[in-house]
Amino acid sequence: MRATVMYGAGDVRVEHVPDAKLQLPTDAVVRVLRACICGSDLHPYHQMAPSREGTPMGHEFLGVVEELGASVSGLRKGDVVIAPFAYSDNTCEFCREGLHTSCRNGGFWASGGVGGAQAEAVRVPQAQGTLVKVAVGEDSALLPSLLTLSDVYGTGYHAAFKAGVTPRTTVTVIGDGAVGLMAVLSARQFGAERIILMGRHQRRTDLGREYGATDVVAERGPEGIARVLDLTRGDGTHVVIEAVGYPDAYDMAVGVVRPGGVISRVGVPQYDNAPVGFGSLFGPNITLTGGPAPARAYIERLLPGVLEGKVHPGKVFDRTVSLDEVPAGYRAMDKREALKVLVRP
Amino acid sequence: MRATVMYGAGDVRVEHVPDAKLQLPTDAVVRVLRACICGSDLHPYHQMAPSREGTPMGHEFLGVVEELGASVSGLRKGDVVIAPFAYSDNTCEFCREGLHTSCRNGGFWASGGVGGAQAEAVRVPQAQGTLVKVAVGEDSALLPSLLTLSDVYGTGYHAAFKAGVTPRTTVTVIGDGAVGLMAVLSARQFGAERIILMGRHQRRTDLGREYGATDVVAERGPEGIARVLDLTRGDGTHVVIEAVGYPDAYDMAVGVVRPGGVISRVGVPQYDNAPVGFGSLFGPNITLTGGPAPARAYIERLLPGVLEGKVHPGKVFDRTVSLDEVPAGYRAMDKREALKVLVRP
Repeated sequence: MRATVMYGAGDVRVEHVPDAKLQLPTDAVVRVLRACICGSDLHPYHQMAPSREGTPMGHEFLGVVEELGASVSGLRKGDVVIAPFAYSDNTCEFCREGLHTSCRNGGFWASGGVGGAQAEAVRVPQAQGTLVKVAVGEDSALLPSLLTLSDVYGTGYHAAFKAGVTPRTTVTVIGDGAVGLMAVLSARQFGAERIILMGRHQRRTDLGREYGATDVVAERGPEGIARVLDLTRGDGTHVVIEAVGYPDAYDMAVGVVRPGGVISRVGVPQYDNAPVGFGSLFGPNITLTGGPAPARAYIERLLPGVLEGKVHPGKVFDRTVSLDEVPAGYRAMDKREALKVLVRP
Repeated sequence: MRATVMYGAGDVRVEHVPDAKLQLPTDAVVRVLRACICGSDLHPYHQMAPSREGTPMGHEFLGVVEELGASVSGLRKGDVVIAPFAYSDNTCEFCREGLHTSCRNGGFWASGGVGGAQAEAVRVPQAQGTLVKVAVGEDSALLPSLLTLSDVYGTGYHAAFKAGVTPRTTVTVIGDGAVGLMAVLSARQFGAERIILMGRHQRRTDLGREYGATDVVAERGPEGIARVLDLTRGDGTHVVIEAVGYPDAYDMAVGVVRPGGVISRVGVPQYDNAPVGFGSLFGPNITLTGGPAPARAYIERLLPGVLEGKVHPGKVFDRTVSLDEVPAGYRAMDKREALKVLVRP
């Protein structure tokens, strides 16, 4: 089959690899209907050291069950299923607590012998716990929105959920990428009436307004901080969702969070250390939360809104490519020509 | 009047200073019945650069109202009152949210022209919002326990409250100082059934057991982490309360917190930056919270238990000194000969 492999920064190839096959009785093989390129895929695209073996790419997909291991129940061949960006047994105590990313039997796509999703097919470990069946056809117009449940919608939702957004909390979202926009949508769903979106790509911030942003701040750094403080009588917002992952975004979050407030991070941090002392987090009693979203925990919760057409998270996809065009998709996202690229193998 | 002034590391003096006097109609003057020396006072005791003017010391006290500004109501001369370690108007939106340490009209003792509490008397700004009257006599045996509401009990309570301790959460408390022990007491009050206390001074950890600690770990660093993981089937505890403030305590907190758990800091951090990246907080979805306790917010809540004799937080005081003996009190705490020193001016 064909699959996407990254060999180093800027070096993405679509190649023939061994077919995805059942290895364990808990596995399934899923033919990929739709996958996509994630903002977090751009981190290795910028930084990965050259590698002979390369690494498979892609962690967001929905597809059709092709094969099922002997111990998988509740699924049938031909089912259309959503796969969250981590696999999990959905039964261990971490899963029961809603932290599927720390599942005792879980893991992540494109590592540890499991393939990536920017491919024709994927072996799915812990298939029974991981895959969520959806009653739509293989050509449903809802596929893009359903695909966001694999990662970006669940990730934006996680940010708002962990931050404790309510109708009484003001919110700043840092970053107008797909996750930032999904955080806007999610904060609105939690009832937030004031949502400030920090981003400078008007096509994206326009979609952010559609999702519920009440204010857009295009400035960054100290100017961006000053602008948000101006909008909030000098106090900042109760919640800041950091959907970027770079140190300057962290610093902006510290700059615009209200005393007693929460910074919720869902941008994968490209740094190890950051300010947490008296002058940043401690003195004003700021809470820092977030992490990789247990997307699996949120799929059932978010699915009805998508199926009923109440929300349209799939609008974050503004380009569709074939599998062969995946390298061009990376380039388009890297150059900010595309917000988020849908892959249709 | 006499008051304690610090002139540099290790240089604490008790001197004659101008009497505490009303300056604003919102002020009161309180004669100090009991004050104490705080673990956080040891930070300047170790680090303060030499100073000609010196800085007044002490931020925990209870006393008797001696004078009242014209606009203060609800208090009378002769009232016995508790003063939290920050003054506040108790009416602004931050105070109404329970964040009195960020009060719009608030501040801290021993700074900005306000004296310290290791003194004969103190001018109390925002007296109406700050002081809490208690119906006990000037010689009540409850004074030491009541005094802990000024800081250490409220601070331990804040740590447990911000961490969301419940009967279902396991807890590690790092540090067997007065705040750590109050955190144990508070976690127990929130219903925690498993409380691991990390400390190596047996007199203190014995008191910790009395307050509710179920396990004591004397080891520190990697050995201490390994010991807590052993006690928790390799997972760590849902909540870690960090009541020290040094980087190695932060690292221990990261080492023993369970995926999805909370690190709640109430030890004043003696560092600016710390690990918060994928390998420490982000990957396992750890929440970092805490800060200076809004002690004022908790006084009414914690007072009944103290007055009814259900809890005995005053046991943290294991030495009493006169005002003249305050420098000896600093030495005793610095040498760990005393857990916490009560000052009786």
